[in-house]
Amino acid sequence: MRLLVPFAPDQPKTRLSPVLSDAERRAFARVMCEDVLATLRETGREPELLATEPVDAAVPVTVDDRPLTEAVNAALAETEESVAVVMADLALATPDSLDRLFAADGDVVLAPGRGGGTNAFVARHPDFRVDYHGASYLDHREAASEVGAEVAVVDSHRLATDVDEPGDLVEVLVHGDGRTRRWLREHGFRIERGNGRVNVSRVDD
Amino acid sequence: MRLLVPFAPDQPKTRLSPVLSDAERRAFARVMCEDVLATLRETGREPELLATEPVDAAVPVTVDDRPLTEAVNAALAETEESVAVVMADLALATPDSLDRLFAADGDVVLAPGRGGGTNAFVARHPDFRVDYHGASYLDHREAASEVGAEVAVVDSHRLATDVDEPGDLVEVLVHGDGRTRRWLREHGFRIERGNGRVNVSRVDD
Repeated sequence: MRLLVPFAPDQPKTRLSPVLSDAERRAFARVMCEDVLATLRETGREPELLATEPVDAAVPVTVDDRPLTEAVNAALAETEESVAVVMADLALATPDSLDRLFAADGDVVLAPGRGGGTNAFVARHPDFRVDYHGASYLDHREAASEVGAEVAVVDSHRLATDVDEPGDLVEVLVHGDGRTRRWLREHGFRIERGNGRVNVSRVDD
Repeated sequence: MRLLVPFAPDQPKTRLSPVLSDAERRAFARVMCEDVLATLRETGREPELLATEPVDAAVPVTVDDRPLTEAVNAALAETEESVAVVMADLALATPDSLDRLFAADGDVVLAPGRGGGTNAFVARHPDFRVDYHGASYLDHREAASEVGAEVAVVDSHRLATDVDEPGDLVEVLVHGDGRTRRWLREHGFRIERGNGRVNVSRVDD
């Protein structure tokens, strides 16, 4: 199985701009990506980066500067074996949650992301293609169905949590245990315990 | 195992007030509760309501008008056997996700909710008590540890999704298949497909 982690170092996470500067967002995205690669290696697999530009990394890097959908579809088209794609911002992913993804039966195995996205998938059908625009989880179910591929879904909070918005940082502080959590703590992020859902606050060092 | 679903018909979900009227929020909370009870029965178990006031229901009802933490702790204290507590707003829960909760080994099994909450648990230790204020998931881990109870955690997007805020309605529309999704559709809620995470919109009938 080919295992790809798409990464766009030139597109820092703009929805985190209320709480992180541009430079911080780049650093943070990089740290999350390192966590994801390390966790994937802990499952005994060899991930590759699918990056929009050359990056320094301890894993093989394929550079493809096209948008995500096109780059992933090119990899799907050119690869004979099955392909797994895991997003670089799944900072809560653990070897267990990823093993559930890889072990699930199905021609196409989807790990939905919060908000209708697709945070990870395994494609074992040669004709499956992706479209990450809009409600990609629903679109990917349809796309699989159209090529006659049987779909399985992995029900995981860890894999459903892509870290895109300030509220997602709470999940990292509560459930994370890797570099990403450490980076947030070092940059002053703390859990704010009130009533209802917990928020994050940022304190001065 | 005693299986409790806390329900407060007098406390409609205020964080949904931007999109639902007071009467609608009451009806919606009731519909979600019915979904949760039906799904629990599909696992072959017999749930009870732990309600703040008398309610009409097809299951046994225990009335306790104290706040959630006190009412649940009273039930934990008075029950000899193990106790499971499942929140009434887990509209995405399926028999599979609940079976994973009930089948997990551990003196205390926690299903974390998004935002640091505890959406469901099983307590097999006589001294475990709850505190739902603040980051209850972390507090419950500590509370279990303090009484020497071994903790297990169920990693489920479905169980992590309590429906409290407008953004949570997207999850119901994308992943739900019960009364709750039907109710939202009948009340004009639709998935709004743009880029990034999907939103909901409400259309006039």
